[in-house]
Amino acid sequence: MFSQEEFASRLWRVQERMADQQFDLLIVTDPCNICYLTGYDGWSFYTPQALLVPLEGEVRMFTRAMDLPGVLATSRLTAEDVFEFEDALVQSPTHHPFEMISDKIQQTWPNARKIGLEMESYYFSIRAYRILEVVLENVEFMDANFLVNWVRFVKSDAEIALMRQAGVLLGKSFDAAFESLVPGARECDVAAAIYAANLEGNEDIGGNYTSSPAFILTNEKARMPHLPWTTQTLKDGDQVNLELMGNHKRYQVTMGRTAYLGTPPQKLYDLERIVQEAIQATLEIIRPGVTCHEVADTVYRSYARHGIDKKSRCGYSLGITYPPTGGELTASLRLGDETMLQEGSTMHLLPAIWDGDTSFMMSEPFVVTTTGAECLANVKRRLFYKD
Amino acid sequence: MFSQEEFASRLWRVQERMADQQFDLLIVTDPCNICYLTGYDGWSFYTPQALLVPLEGEVRMFTRAMDLPGVLATSRLTAEDVFEFEDALVQSPTHHPFEMISDKIQQTWPNARKIGLEMESYYFSIRAYRILEVVLENVEFMDANFLVNWVRFVKSDAEIALMRQAGVLLGKSFDAAFESLVPGARECDVAAAIYAANLEGNEDIGGNYTSSPAFILTNEKARMPHLPWTTQTLKDGDQVNLELMGNHKRYQVTMGRTAYLGTPPQKLYDLERIVQEAIQATLEIIRPGVTCHEVADTVYRSYARHGIDKKSRCGYSLGITYPPTGGELTASLRLGDETMLQEGSTMHLLPAIWDGDTSFMMSEPFVVTTTGAECLANVKRRLFYKD
Repeated sequence: MFSQEEFASRLWRVQERMADQQFDLLIVTDPCNICYLTGYDGWSFYTPQALLVPLEGEVRMFTRAMDLPGVLATSRLTAEDVFEFEDALVQSPTHHPFEMISDKIQQTWPNARKIGLEMESYYFSIRAYRILEVVLENVEFMDANFLVNWVRFVKSDAEIALMRQAGVLLGKSFDAAFESLVPGARECDVAAAIYAANLEGNEDIGGNYTSSPAFILTNEKARMPHLPWTTQTLKDGDQVNLELMGNHKRYQVTMGRTAYLGTPPQKLYDLERIVQEAIQATLEIIRPGVTCHEVADTVYRSYARHGIDKKSRCGYSLGITYPPTGGELTASLRLGDETMLQEGSTMHLLPAIWDGDTSFMMSEPFVVTTTGAECLANVKRRLFYKD
Repeated sequence: MFSQEEFASRLWRVQERMADQQFDLLIVTDPCNICYLTGYDGWSFYTPQALLVPLEGEVRMFTRAMDLPGVLATSRLTAEDVFEFEDALVQSPTHHPFEMISDKIQQTWPNARKIGLEMESYYFSIRAYRILEVVLENVEFMDANFLVNWVRFVKSDAEIALMRQAGVLLGKSFDAAFESLVPGARECDVAAAIYAANLEGNEDIGGNYTSSPAFILTNEKARMPHLPWTTQTLKDGDQVNLELMGNHKRYQVTMGRTAYLGTPPQKLYDLERIVQEAIQATLEIIRPGVTCHEVADTVYRSYARHGIDKKSRCGYSLGITYPPTGGELTASLRLGDETMLQEGSTMHLLPAIWDGDTSFMMSEPFVVTTTGAECLANVKRRLFYKD
């Protein structure tokens, strides 16, 4: 749990952005943002819930009655801050929790004229939005997409400490994955090893569920980067691209590596050197003030020297995660993104190569320090193989 | 993979419901529904994507360019059915995939006047909805919430076979959980055992990721049913309420049990008998034609005989799942839900008891047969303890 000062600073920075955009109220539905502002960590977002942030003063939380004890147990909120709605409203064809939330907004903030909404939150439905529009007919609803996400972009020391722990879990997960990659093992056995290692952690820390599944992509499946593992049996000569996550108290660090069963073909050694060079060159330019565009451009220019034309996004911001994504949905490492990295930004540099039948996966999660980049996963940056 | 006949029947039943509601077109964004109608299984729903279902004729799918090979590899769709959008549209502040989708709707179905939308889909944002409204200004958008979900409510024999396999994985998961419940083990170690067992499966089948985390609720956390596991160490005298899932090719079966480390107090034996009696009485009345209301009423009346006043929902429909929920969001086992169970309906009967400091978790997933109910998880219906 973070200090009260840290929570106060988070809220203050959100309210500062609200003032810039002249919002009287912000309705937060993204569970990452609710966790960030309150500490609450529960799997209750499959049901409508909301955190209401006024321009001044304390937040109010609306949750299902059965989740109220969990909110009080894991968040900084007290019973006065939290309102419950009854179970009959949940998944009901005739009623909806946002009817009660809209009424409460009208009573509590009758003068709110501009209300910010997270227009691309996974857990804020069109049905809820239309109820707000009908009940609060004199309110102007504005797009406040990613307002809190952008506040999350710079991590505190306490958050970076959790990201480092997530990196430790990720390292254990990778070691277990590589050990399990033997001819005769099935992809699902590799998945079992990966999940168990992240969750068991070590004697000091345990792991939490990750916000997306591990990706275990064998041979031609490298070109299908979001497919699930199967019961396919691994054999000598298989290439396996792994994308793994460590998660510690919702803070998540992601990393990819290519592994090979047997003696790798020369092409993979060549790619290993090309990607190592690109990551090395890119990490060397990282410091506060460098833009995401410049980072991506460094990757692309390094690749271009070897005749590789890469255009797709090569990274994104990391932090608190709930399904379905491990990214913060803010900064992207791609051309045209002029976001400046700051001390405390945490990013996943993922310059993966897919080129016809050839692929290579090697990535590096890092935190921006005063003078450079500190890698968050302690896994050797090389092609892994068992010959 | 299911037969072409089965997919044709699924599409036909959706189009029949569309005709009833006079929809010219249906926009499907729920990944469970996309999987049901096409077979596609990829973790790409964190990015906008859509399946367009016309009143007559074949569907069209829109997906991110990098996911196109995965769609073609795992679905029944061919390259003519699938349109890709470029990576630059993903998580862009200025552009959105639904701009392209809206344009394509206008070109392909210029006479579509009534379009059905899944107004409570987790993966259909307000931003996407507002783009549709602007581009397709002459269209009337109707709420088609859960239209496909209701078609999914009755499973085919092929689907029930997958649910039974998910039940086998669930049984393995429970056995591993109970074995790991020893004084000195941490909750996260129990989680590791649960996940590994579901994923490893047995020599015939492997498991897939579940749509929600396992719940491992020790002592007072029983009253906080959606909190994550921790590194808390188990000790003699602990009660642990477990809610576990087995997942086979996205078909998921869920089940709960209470376990006790040591000799359970008499109160738990009493609750065991009360819940066993309620589940037994309820399973006995299950047959095609019985309503969800009648099922819930049987549970509540059985409990009332023992002075237990339970009101909250005691179950829901099971089937294909993606995060964040293991339910189909259609039928609920609660008073007032007049949905009739049909042969092939699959439900989770979850008459959990939370009564002050006392709790008891015992549930049963089942499929409705011609004459009754077949349980989908082969786990003894009792209080588990290690004395």
